Amino acid sequence: MDRIKATIAYDGTNYCGWQIQPNGVTIQETVEKAIEEVLGTKIKITASGRTDAGVHALGQVFHFDNSSTIPANKLSFAINAKLPEDIRILKTEIVSNDFHARYSAKNKTYIYKMYLGKYRNPLKRNYETYIGKEINIIPMQAAAEMLLGSHDFVGFSSSGSDVKTTVREIFNANIDRNGDELQFEITGNGFLYNMVRIIVGTLIEIGEGKKDAECIAKILNTKKRNLGGKTAKPQGLYLLKVKYL
Amino acid sequence: MDRIKATIAYDGTNYCGWQIQPNGVTIQETVEKAIEEVLGTKIKITASGRTDAGVHALGQVFHFDNSSTIPANKLSFAINAKLPEDIRILKTEIVSNDFHARYSAKNKTYIYKMYLGKYRNPLKRNYETYIGKEINIIPMQAAAEMLLGSHDFVGFSSSGSDVKTTVREIFNANIDRNGDELQFEITGNGFLYNMVRIIVGTLIEIGEGKKDAECIAKILNTKKRNLGGKTAKPQGLYLLKVKYL
Repeated sequence: MDRIKATIAYDGTNYCGWQIQPNGVTIQETVEKAIEEVLGTKIKITASGRTDAGVHALGQVFHFDNSSTIPANKLSFAINAKLPEDIRILKTEIVSNDFHARYSAKNKTYIYKMYLGKYRNPLKRNYETYIGKEINIIPMQAAAEMLLGSHDFVGFSSSGSDVKTTVREIFNANIDRNGDELQFEITGNGFLYNMVRIIVGTLIEIGEGKKDAECIAKILNTKKRNLGGKTAKPQGLYLLKVKYL
Repeated sequence: MDRIKATIAYDGTNYCGWQIQPNGVTIQETVEKAIEEVLGTKIKITASGRTDAGVHALGQVFHFDNSSTIPANKLSFAINAKLPEDIRILKTEIVSNDFHARYSAKNKTYIYKMYLGKYRNPLKRNYETYIGKEINIIPMQAAAEMLLGSHDFVGFSSSGSDVKTTVREIFNANIDRNGDELQFEITGNGFLYNMVRIIVGTLIEIGEGKKDAECIAKILNTKKRNLGGKTAKPQGLYLLKVKYL
């Protein structure tokens, strides 16, 4: 038996998120079914974390155990042949038996894409959040920098998650503009439920001048969710990569 | 009564092309229904030309006649409110009564996007054609330049279109690489059925080394479709803009 680490990209548009649930098709069940067809046995896969409906992944990671004779590096091709086009396994590789996609993860990077064009672009509707107003990136960048380091991010989370601690460390957070596209990138040792989307929603209101950059520090200090912006839409969010030691 | 010129963008993924047909939902009928809801009368719209299933538009143009009291520049907002998110009217404006979206068009520009990444990216599956092989852009650029000027493009067309002449003039044709993305842009006074996709399919085989750049000149001279490459997939094709005098 080999433990397999799989790196996967998906378009979250047509799925009810990663995790199996009673109503609606999820990415996890779609991938498990494909692997079961290839291996001929029941299988359970474990991801680095779930992603919500509409959220995309360019480098999500999951693990499972392979008892078949198919070589690890050939598994990706075999599984892709059984998967719909909006889900692609990028790589499958053998890792040590104690590798765990969630618990072994050292940090994760998300990106969030926003579109600033004059018109709402129908081709970007599922991939970039449309900002229909003038936006100033300078205070957004200042605000993003206040996220760096270890903080209690409970004021940037939605209730409903059951975690031991709400302290997380952010290693990198920055915003770049490229023409009509604005991209926020954030790397941390973990993220609370809806944390990236609430951070982005708050940054957008800072860029629009509705809030000051200092409100970031205020939310970190007071832990009050209601001082932040709306939770940004899932469609602009991408799990870019998960890093392991 | 005012003649209205409308500029429209759409994601062609979920439609059976522009033109109304018995089976499957088309962009034309979706837009006509939305305009009829706004104006309260039966309406027929006329585009600069049809686009095939899966082909996108960033600046398609159509015209119709407005007998309502809604100001021309407000029509786009009213129509967009009735349209699905994958179709957006960018602009509506009054033009002279002899304006015709098809016959008044002076030239059209198409772009075709190709993705050269190491892995098939599920997020680009409907928007960029995946090239899984090494590709050399130099002979593709040389080949593209051979398209410039007036030529009989019948060797770059699929049968089935009923046109008076198969001579078209190409004003611009070039290929640009930006990281893992390759974009072909072509402007001409008109295009035959499948012409851009056959040109692109031929350019791809030239880039892969399967054909010489000179095969472009040979197809123009001999008018033989079978000397060219496969018709490239519709998913990478975008009608970028239509120019009028």
